[in-house]
Order: sequence, then C-alpha cells, then structure tokens
Amino acid sequence: MPVNLRIPKPEELLQVGGVKLGTARANIRKPDRRDLLVVELEEGARVSGVFTKNRFCAAPVLLCREHLKSGGIRALVINTGCANAGTGEEGLIRARKTCSELARLLDCKEEQILPFSTGVILEQLPADRIIAGLPECLSNLGQGGWFEAAEAIMTTDIQPKAISKEIEIEGKKVRVTGIAKGSGMIHPNMATMLGFVAFDAKVSQKQLDDLVVEAANASFNRITVDGDTSTNDSFILISSGDSPEISGASFEKLKQAVIEVSVFLAQAIVRDGEGATKFISIGVEGGKDDEECAKVAYSIAHSPLVKTAFFASDPNLGRILAAIGYAGIEDLDVDNIQVYLDDVLVAEKGGRAASYREEDGARVMKQDEILVRVVLNRGEKRTTVWTCDFSYDYVRINADYRS
Amino acid sequence: MPVNLRIPKPEELLQVGGVKLGTARANIRKPDRRDLLVVELEEGARVSGVFTKNRFCAAPVLLCREHLKSGGIRALVINTGCANAGTGEEGLIRARKTCSELARLLDCKEEQILPFSTGVILEQLPADRIIAGLPECLSNLGQGGWFEAAEAIMTTDIQPKAISKEIEIEGKKVRVTGIAKGSGMIHPNMATMLGFVAFDAKVSQKQLDDLVVEAANASFNRITVDGDTSTNDSFILISSGDSPEISGASFEKLKQAVIEVSVFLAQAIVRDGEGATKFISIGVEGGKDDEECAKVAYSIAHSPLVKTAFFASDPNLGRILAAIGYAGIEDLDVDNIQVYLDDVLVAEKGGRAASYREEDGARVMKQDEILVRVVLNRGEKRTTVWTCDFSYDYVRINADYRS
Repeated sequence: MPVNLRIPKPEELLQVGGVKLGTARANIRKPDRRDLLVVELEEGARVSGVFTKNRFCAAPVLLCREHLKSGGIRALVINTGCANAGTGEEGLIRARKTCSELARLLDCKEEQILPFSTGVILEQLPADRIIAGLPECLSNLGQGGWFEAAEAIMTTDIQPKAISKEIEIEGKKVRVTGIAKGSGMIHPNMATMLGFVAFDAKVSQKQLDDLVVEAANASFNRITVDGDTSTNDSFILISSGDSPEISGASFEKLKQAVIEVSVFLAQAIVRDGEGATKFISIGVEGGKDDEECAKVAYSIAHSPLVKTAFFASDPNLGRILAAIGYAGIEDLDVDNIQVYLDDVLVAEKGGRAASYREEDGARVMKQDEILVRVVLNRGEKRTTVWTCDFSYDYVRINADYRS
Repeated sequence: MPVNLRIPKPEELLQVGGVKLGTARANIRKPDRRDLLVVELEEGARVSGVFTKNRFCAAPVLLCREHLKSGGIRALVINTGCANAGTGEEGLIRARKTCSELARLLDCKEEQILPFSTGVILEQLPADRIIAGLPECLSNLGQGGWFEAAEAIMTTDIQPKAISKEIEIEGKKVRVTGIAKGSGMIHPNMATMLGFVAFDAKVSQKQLDDLVVEAANASFNRITVDGDTSTNDSFILISSGDSPEISGASFEKLKQAVIEVSVFLAQAIVRDGEGATKFISIGVEGGKDDEECAKVAYSIAHSPLVKTAFFASDPNLGRILAAIGYAGIEDLDVDNIQVYLDDVLVAEKGGRAASYREEDGARVMKQDEILVRVVLNRGEKRTTVWTCDFSYDYVRINADYRS
C-alpha cells in the first residue's frame, strides 16, 4: 500500500478557471475503467512543458514538443494503457490522428492539441478506441473533473495523486491544482510519470517556461523508484485566466505554490512507488557542488541492496556506506563523513560511530518515513532526493505487468 | 537455483605446484561451516592483484595493497562471515593482528601475508576466532584442497565456484586453477567477489601485473548482478613453480588459459547471482567506442524493469528499448538500431520489427540462457556483459541476509 499517501476528497481539488476536464471509459486496455482524459483550455491559456530525455522518446512526446512551438494550445488528450513508445512512424501517425480528431470536435487546429500516452511500450496505439471515447470525454467536460482526471491517468498506480493550493495574489484568490501518475520506471529526467499543474493566473510565456523547469528540478527530477527513465515522461504547466500578467513578489508567491504542488505530486509518486512500504528521503550536505551531492544521493537511492535492507527494516548501514563509496567521487575522504539515520549518528571516521547502538538504528528503520543524512564535510552544497524501498511486490508487479 | 552452474568434482580441480590450501571451521559467523582458508605459497611465488574502487574499501584491501608493494608474499588468509569493512582504525588493527599471527605460525613477516574478508559490513572482525582457527587450517594444508577452499569462501553463494585448465607449454604441463565467491553486490570494478587464480608457471612480475588487469577486464569487470560495487572485491593471480620465466607465444597461451578460467569464474558468479533464474548475455556492437557500448550494455543490465521482465519470461521489449534510450548517448539515432533476442530480430526503425512475432520472443524468453544483441550501427566497437534476472528471491535473500 502507498506510504502515507492520502487520497484527496474530490471536493478538495479546487477548480481552476479556464480549465475543464472530461474523462471516458474507452476500453483502451482494460474494460470498465476510466482510461481517457481530455483537458480543454480557454483561449489565451499558456502552456509549457518538460519531457523525457530518453532517446527512445514516445510519439506523443515528439508531437508535444512540435505543437508547443506553435503555441495556442487548446486541449490535452491523455490515455493510459498504451504508451505509444517504440512504435516508429506508425506511432506518430496514430498520435496525429487522435489530435486531429479532437481538433475537429473542438473546432481548432491539430497543432493546438497536446497528446500524452502512458502504459505498455512497443505496442501500437489503439487510436480507434481513443477516438471513439472522445465524445464521452467532451460530454462531461467541467471544471470539477480533477479527481476523475487523476484516476483516468493511472497505470500501476494504486491511488490517484492530486492536490490543490489556494493563495491570494493582489487581493485575488488564485488556485493551483495538479495531478500526476507514475509509480514504476521512475527516475530523474524523468519518470514514467505524467504531471499536469494548472493555475488561474496569467504569467508570461517566458516566466512559464522558466517555472516549469524550476518546478521539475525541485520535484519530479529528484525522485527515483527504480532508476529507469521512461520514454513518455511529461510535466506540463498551464497558466489560464484573464488577469493581467503578474510579476515580482506576486510571481514569487505563485512560484512557491507551484513548486509545493509539484513536490507533493513527485513525492506522491514515490509514496505509491511499485511495492513501496517506506518513504525514504536522502539528504546529502557539505558537498563541493550540486553534482557530487546528487551522485551520492542517487548512488544510495538506486542501490538494490540498500533498498532491500530498508524493506527488511534492517539497519545494515554498511550497504549505505558502500553506496557512498562507489558514487564515483574520486577524492572522497571516507574518514571525514558522517551518516545519520534521522537523528541517530550511525557512521563516522570510516566506520560505525562509537555512540551508535543497534537498537537506535533498528528503531528508525522500523518507521515508514526515514531520513538518511550524509554529511560530506567538504563544501557548502546540499541536495535531497526521495525514494522508496524495494520489496517482493516490486518484483511481482513488474513481473506480472503485462499479464 | 544457480543457472547451469556445474559443481566441480573435487578431483577435477588440478593441483598447482607450490600452492597449498587448508581450511577450518572457525565459527566466525555460523557454526559448523568452513569459513576460514589459508593459502600457503612456496618461496619465490609471485602475486599480483586488483581491488575494489569503492572509496569505503575494507581494511584487508588496504593491507593487501600495502603488502603487495613489498612483495615476497608467502600466504593468503581469507575469512567469510565478516567483511571487515567500514570498521575504521580498529578494523586495520584486527586485520594486522590476523596477519601477524599467521606470519608467526609460518615463520615469515606480517608483510608477507595477504588478508581477505567477505561478509557483513560495518561489524568488527572477530580476529580472535580467526586466529584460533589458523592452526586447523595449517594442519590440513595440501595441494589438493581447492574444492574445500572454494566452499570456505562462500557467503550467500549457493554453489562453490572453481575450475581448472591444463595446458602444455614448452613440453611441460601447466595447470591453472581458480576459485571465486560472490553472488550479490556484483558490479564491475568490481563485486563482492573474491577470485584467486594460480598457475604453476613462472612469469615476470610485470607480466603478472599486466595479466591480472587484462584478465579482470575480460571477466570480473564485465558482470553485474545488482549494480552494487562492494568494499572488498579482490582478484588475485599467483604464479608459482621453479621453471624459467615464460614469454612470447608460451605466455600468450598461458594468458588465454588464465582469461578462460577467469571468465568461467566471473560467469559462475552471475549464474549463482542472488535469486537468479536466468543467465543473460548482453552484447552491444557497432558502437563508436568501447565506452558507449558499455554504457548501453550496463543500462540494460542494470534496469530492474528489464530484469523483472526476464524473470517473468515476458518479452516486454519496450523496457529494453527504454534502457537503451536512457543510456546517456546524446546523439543516438534510435531509428538506426536493431535489437535481437538470440536470433530473433525484435526491434528496428525505432519500433517493433515488422517480422517480429510475439511467440518468437516468448520462445527465447523462456530459455534459461538468453542473448540480448544490440546493433548500434554507428561504429566498429563491441562489448559483452553478463547479468541475471531479478526475482522474488533476490529480495528475500537481501532482506533476510543478516537475520
């Protein structure tokens, strides 16, 4: 079960002016489940996105990049069940067909539609079923559809992931609402994850383009479940509303809210990580630069031995030390490092801390939220990444996924 | 169970002149199992080694590096049950104590002993129990002790790993015999693996130093079970015998035999990989340089999603393509790649091959030995790495290891 991941109540998800959502049961892969989502944007809404760096990126990612260049996006269409990745030229044709059909229904141009797909790779998109489901999506379009939208984009996710924040900017209420999906193939830059965050305040395209990168770097690019980077990762930021463009302190306030929503969603993906029983934060501080902090953090976060020890609640700290040691920092002086499990100093001077008692480590390891803190003592930089443990269920889920 | 890993018959392991082995049940971690090994070398034997690159390297690795500098090695002492890693200054003191006690018993200097440890990290070495076990090792020293030696160095290994080859050089029989241990925390550069290969032919120290690197690069540095690099990895090559130094074609013949023995042992570690049910070779060819071939091969070999798909015998080829895509080759043209499962072309032109039939993929995936062949079509270089699948048992073994 997901680790301390609360399912939002539908009414907690705040409507964002200018953004309507509609879902359908289109039988894309499994019968009788929401598997198709259309997000309609009012004219003048601005959209920006960041996408997977995987060279085998999916057909919809290619189209998104292309369509975002021309701007004027009017709708997003998202299906689960099939990722339309590794599908070659035919995959592009089918994704375009979906876009053009939705454009026809909404009376706009194909280039004004952004397509997203998630699910099994290397199978052709059942575009006919998607197209057949579009009218149902449009028939229930509404600003209140965020909860159903969060459900419609799930794959191996156990729980829908969604959150809202309301802030006041220049005397006016602004709502930031986001949804995300993903629980396996999760890795920075990025994950089999789709994330969509919208707010009803107007910012310039440049501000939006910068913000989507900043928010992704603070959230979705700092999580890992299994180290696999998907072909389909997409994080989309939507600015709607007819207020004047905000800037200065108001923009900073908005930025903070967007980052908070993004971090919640990113952590939600880890909390619902395939087979996760624990939520692990790995903080590395005192590094010379961001890169070496990240190297150490990901080395720990990716180690199957560390992750299985967390699963077993076993304070097998040697595995953490080993992972620090092979992180690839050539001149690392291991005698100078401290490692903590929450507040318990577990290692220093190249070995187990003199004050460490196994029962203290065991107490922390039993928790379902654990902070591993590594102090490198060689600089001023720090970073945090979030991950989960590695359980039987991870293997079961991924061994059974297609069956 | 290990994948097609034959347990050698004790009599198949050929004696190597000048090398005697003796074991003991020293109760280091578990009662009543062989857990201590002494290898005694005749005077004049030459020894060379390569060791882990992990910055948290174990105390015995530090001592081995130091002692190898002075040369004249007369014995190796190897314990299982405790790795003596992450043990700080005290770990060094205890490893030295073990060496000095064995030196006393063998009437040589402490610097002429090489210590090796494998097992749990971050616990102090029970040096007293090791020292107490040394007389038993010495009492059964003999050239015929290779099989018991292979057993004595096991940790989570299910089967002992050992092999011999006999070649004829300049009309004289030369025997190459090796043993190894390791099944988790296996990664290039290197693994929780210990490997010891000895031959009764004399080569120069320079030849031996080069050969140990070349043999490691062809074998132990090309395997991965879980991507974890241990603190204790050591690969030792021993040249004994009083023949004149060999060179030229004779040395090439010997080199070939040493590499074959090393490759067998390295593959044996993968075959006995924790929870392994399949032995996977990943061949990448047509790369611009060795580095990019290795990047692609390890990206596939490390992917938990790929490895669980192999476990499930599921031809989920998309996961392989995704792993190729995130291997980190910036200018990789995915439309130009072919991927084969054994002889079955599964992907080309950025997607599933037109000729591919799911039943062909399923047939290959059911095998217990599978070749994944990736043709990059952008150069002349190639590499192969060996790995195994990722099963429930991997999690079970590593979650239970200390209990």
